[in-house]
Amino acid sequence: MPAEFSYVRRVQFYETDLAGIVHFSWYFRYMEEAEHALWRHLGLSISPPEPEFGFPRVNASCDFKAPLRFEDELEVRIRVESIGSRSIRYACTLCLGDAVVATGSMTSVCVAHDADGVVRSIDVPEAVVARLRGMA
Amino acid sequence: MPAEFSYVRRVQFYETDLAGIVHFSWYFRYMEEAEHALWRHLGLSISPPEPEFGFPRVNASCDFKAPLRFEDELEVRIRVESIGSRSIRYACTLCLGDAVVATGSMTSVCVAHDADGVVRSIDVPEAVVARLRGMA
Amino acid sequence: MPAEFSYVRRVQFYETDLAGIVHFSWYFRYMEEAEHALWRHLGLSISPPEPEFGFPRVNASCDFKAPLRFEDELEVRIRVESIGSRSIRYACTLCLGDAVVATGSMTSVCVAHDADGVVRSIDVPEAVVARLRGMA
Amino acid sequence: MPAEFSYVRRVQFYETDLAGIVHFSWYFRYMEEAEHALWRHLGLSISPPEPEFGFPRVNASCDFKAPLRFEDELEVRIRVESIGSRSIRYACTLCLGDAVVATGSMTSVCVAHDADGVVRSIDVPEAVVARLRGMA
Repeated sequence: MPAEFSYVRRVQFYETDLAGIVHFSWYFRYMEEAEHALWRHLGLSISPPEPEFGFPRVNASCDFKAPLRFEDELEVRIRVESIGSRSIRYACTLCLGDAVVATGSMTSVCVAHDADGVVRSIDVPEAVVARLRGMA
Repeated sequence: MPAEFSYVRRVQFYETDLAGIVHFSWYFRYMEEAEHALWRHLGLSISPPEPEFGFPRVNASCDFKAPLRFEDELEVRIRVESIGSRSIRYACTLCLGDAVVATGSMTSVCVAHDADGVVRSIDVPEAVVARLRGMA
Repeated sequence: MPAEFSYVRRVQFYETDLAGIVHFSWYFRYMEEAEHALWRHLGLSISPPEPEFGFPRVNASCDFKAPLRFEDELEVRIRVESIGSRSIRYACTLCLGDAVVATGSMTSVCVAHDADGVVRSIDVPEAVVARLRGMA
Repeated sequence: MPAEFSYVRRVQFYETDLAGIVHFSWYFRYMEEAEHALWRHLGLSISPPEPEFGFPRVNASCDFKAPLRFEDELEVRIRVESIGSRSIRYACTLCLGDAVVATGSMTSVCVAHDADGVVRSIDVPEAVVARLRGMA
C-alpha cells in the first residue's frame, strides 16, 4: 500500500494561538481531515447517516518539525500504513511546499454497537479493506 | 427570575489566537459552559445518557467589550431571562474581576426526536421549567 | 455594497457534537473563514506577517434555522453591510444548497497597538475601505 | 522526579462528537491544561505577559483506552518524565475514577526569539529546571 493521498487546506485564524503559530492539537485534526477526505475519494464515508460500525482511535502521535502560520496552505499526505483484521493504521506527512512541517500516525479500531449499546471490536468490513487496499 | 448563577473558569492557552487574546468564538462556549453548570446546579443535565429531548440554539449573540488573555480567571454570570412554552432564553455577563468583558444571550428551543428520526418542537418539560423558575 | 462573496467548505467530524449536528459555536468560525477568504479575494490579509492594525470583534450574532451535519458542503455568502469610520459590519447567510441554515452578522473595529502596547481605536485604513467598497 | 500533579476538569458538551464521545484531539488539550496547571502550581507561567522564551512541542502521543463522555469528571495525572538541557518531557495518565482512559506524553523544547524574529533553541532556564525538579 505505497499510494499516497494528498489533501490541501488553508490554516485558519482560530487555529493559531498567542505564540502566533498553529496550536499543536490542530495537527491531529488536519490528519483526520485527510483521512476522511481519503475515504470520500474512495467512495466511502467514515460516518454515513446510519452507521453500522465506527472507527475510534487507539493511538495518535505526531512529531512537530516546523511551525504553521495563518493562511499557510498546508498539504497532508496520507497513506494506509497497515490494515490489521480489526485495525487501520495511517501515516501522514504534513508539508508546506517542499518543507516537511510534521509527521504523524493514527491507529483506529473497528467497532460495532450491540443492541444494548455495548461497543464491541469487530473485523474491518471487507468492502472497506478492498477500497483501502485498492489505493496501492 | 432575577437570580443569577456564577460560573468561574480559567482561560486556556489553546483558546487564544495570534492576536494574543481569546478568539471571539470561545465566548459562546463560555456561555454554554455556564448554562450546563447551572443545569447541574439545579440537579438537571442538558444531555442525560438517554435523552428524551434536546435544546438546539435558535439564536446566540455577544457584545465584546474587552479582551481576555491566557490564564485570566473569568466569571460568567448567567440568568434565565425568559421561558416560553417551547423556548428558553439566557442572558450572560462575562466578567474579569469587576470589569465586564462581554454581555451575551442564547435562545434554545426544546425538541424531541420521533421514532423515524424527525425532529419536532415540543413544550419545555414542566420539571425543567419548575427548576429554572425555582432559581428566583 | 450589495455584492456578495461566496465561500464553500465541508463540515468536519470534530465540528459535530453528541447531538449529531454541528455545534453552534462553529457557525461563527464559518462566518470568520468567509470574511478572511473575502479579504484574500480582494488582495488583502486580515493579519499580514507584520500587522499595523487589527480588527477585533465588538459584536457577533447568529440565528440558527437548520442543522448542519458531517460532510455537508456548506456555503457562506458574506457581504459588507456597512463601513463606518472605525468599524466594518458583515452580514452572512449560511446555505446548504438552496436552504438557508443560518443568518448572522459580525462587527469589527479597527485598532492599532501603540509602542507601549496600548490598544487604540483608529480609522479603517483608506486602502481597506477602497477594496471593500470595490466589491459592489 | 516521580511526583505527580493531579488536574481535574469536567468534559464539556462541545468536546464531544457525533459518536457521542470526546473527540480524540481533546485528550491532547487536556494534557496541556494539566501541564499549565502544574506550572501555575509551581509559581510559574508557560507564557507570562512578556515572555522571554517559549516551549513549542516537538512530539505528542496518546494511547486511547476508553471513551470519555459529556459531564465526566476527568483527572489528568501529569509528571515530568525527563528534563534535557533544552527539552522537557511529560508523561500523563488520564483517569475516570480508578479507570485509566488514556496515557500520553508531550515533549517540548525551549526557544527564544531573536530581535529579528528568528526562533532559536536555548537551554531550559535554571529557574524552571529547579522548580520542576522540586516536584519530586
